[in-house]
Order: sequence, then structure tokens, then C-alpha cells
Amino acid sequence: MSEELAARGQTTAAQVRKDLSHFGSFGKRGLGYRVRELRASLQRIIGVDRPWRVALVGAGRIGLALFEYPAFRARGYECVAIVDSDPEKIGTVWGNLTIRGPEEFETIVASLDVELIILAVPGPAAQELAARAVDAGVKGILNFAPIRLNVPPRVPVEDVNLIMELEALSFAITQAQRDA
Amino acid sequence: MSEELAARGQTTAAQVRKDLSHFGSFGKRGLGYRVRELRASLQRIIGVDRPWRVALVGAGRIGLALFEYPAFRARGYECVAIVDSDPEKIGTVWGNLTIRGPEEFETIVASLDVELIILAVPGPAAQELAARAVDAGVKGILNFAPIRLNVPPRVPVEDVNLIMELEALSFAITQAQRDA
Repeated sequence: MSEELAARGQTTAAQVRKDLSHFGSFGKRGLGYRVRELRASLQRIIGVDRPWRVALVGAGRIGLALFEYPAFRARGYECVAIVDSDPEKIGTVWGNLTIRGPEEFETIVASLDVELIILAVPGPAAQELAARAVDAGVKGILNFAPIRLNVPPRVPVEDVNLIMELEALSFAITQAQRDA
Repeated sequence: MSEELAARGQTTAAQVRKDLSHFGSFGKRGLGYRVRELRASLQRIIGVDRPWRVALVGAGRIGLALFEYPAFRARGYECVAIVDSDPEKIGTVWGNLTIRGPEEFETIVASLDVELIILAVPGPAAQELAARAVDAGVKGILNFAPIRLNVPPRVPVEDVNLIMELEALSFAITQAQRDA
């Protein structure tokens, strides 16, 4: 079992056992893990043993691609609201949701129990919206805006910066060619 | 100057100076860095002092969002081809590019000097296309498919896994609430 997990994660069985041991005692030496129990424990630890209520902030191209990404809902991330500042978009319908204006943001977060936001707005608008989300009670932010958000440490932020990913790739290629 | 870079990167001036020293000798102690020279050196080191020729593989929603993302071109990543396997998409035009079928992939890479691919196809199709890209001479892959690609170590891969980002956020929130 740890061998199988190791192969999938491109690591070693010993590392898998060590990593798992950080979170408690799983399985029996020589007997392996009970897959169902291990999976349930890991899901609880990661926090994916329950659904998460998400608001999409920014109904641009990236927002739309994310909104329509079937894996999000399949994994328990349910988009319960969409907010955008563009008057042409406010009031239009995506799926079963009506896009709402930013002045409604706090009401939406409170009334719909939004826990996470996906922030897919241009850089200049991102900080203010992040701060408002935090004040309204949002617990975490998936940030696509190309800026570093300034929020309290109790609110985790995951940044997805596509330009930085491409630049990391350029760097890796440049290094690989230098070493060759 | 190192103070300024440190503030922007949320690190310390000493760390900035240490990080830069890995790549060579920049600036003069007490006098700081010459901004223009430093920038040019860093751009050369990272490999962003020149344009990169990119093919988009997968003309779905994420592909479209990426294709229309103005920052890519602004930073020197020029999309020179789009490939998709959907017969309804092949032949249609995005911007100034006609979407082409996967049977043309090798010809496209060779004739257009494609260096990078953005792989935005479903998991099951990704490995075969990645292997073909590598054989055709592609030097690096930005991978949006939710699988770990098996390619030679000389070909760097950057993975963008949006589900994993959300799950990392769920984990961070769950931990933060446990500690509170």
C-alpha cells in the first residue's frame, strides 16, 4: 500500500509512511493500511470530508472557465454566488446563478454562508475585495489576481499566478539547457 | 534597494541579497544595485529576456481563458498554434489562429519552432500528447491536466492543478480553525 501510494506520488514507500505518521497512527506494520479508513481520515485531515461554499468574485474569462469546471463541484466545492462589477454582467445568469454587483458582496457572504472566495479580478481591484471578504467572514481565498494580497494570517490564501508558472518554466528550461 | 525588493516579496533585505548572490555578483556593498542592470541580468537568468513560442493544446474553456489572457503576450509568451481533437473546433479561428487537429501536432511543433506547450486537455489525453510533444522537440510543458506527466527529466513540467489548490486551501483553513 505505501509502495502503491509512493509510485503514484513519485516518492518512496518510507516517505509515504513518514508523511502519514505526521498526522497520527495509521495502519499496522507489515499489514498495511485499511484503504477505506485511511481515505476517510485523510479527507477529514485535509478538510475535504464536507462540502465548501464558494463565491466566485470576477466573472471574466478565467472566472467562467472555473465556474464551468465540472471537477470543482464533484470535489465538494459548490459555487453559491457570483459577483462582478461590470454593469453589463450584473443580472445575467450563469447556470442557476444570477451575477450580482459588488455592493451586495457582504450581504451575499453573510446570507449564503460563503466560506471561500475564488478571486478572479484584475490586480487593482483584488486587494479591496479581499479585505471586504475577510471582514465579511470569508475563511480562505483562492487568488488568481497577480498581486500579493494583504490579509490577516488567520485567512489562508492560495495564489495561482499563471505568468509566474510560465516564467518558472522558462527558468527551468533555461537552466536545463545551460547544464546540458 | 534590497529593502525595497524585500518589502515587495515579503522577505528580508538580507535574504534578497543572499538569494541574488546565488546567481552571481550584483551591485556594490553600501551602494546598492543598478536597477536597469539588475533587471536585465535577472531577466536573462530566468530566461524571460526573449520571446517564447507557445502552442496551446486543448481549446476548451481553460484554453480559451488562457489564450485571451493579455498578460501572456505582454510577457513574451506568443501563442503560435492551437491544437484540439474536437472536429467541431478544428478549422475555427481564434484571434489570428486556426485551430488544427492533433494529427498535425508534430508538423506544427517543427515548422513553427514551438518551444513550450500549454496542455489544457482532459487527463486521459494528456500523457500521449505530452509524449508526442517531447518527441517533437518541445522543451517544456505547462500542464493543466490533473495527472502527473511522465516525461524525461530534461523537459521541465509546471503543473497547475486547480483542485489541488482548492484542497490546499481547505487544508489550511481546517488547520487554522483547529489551532484557533
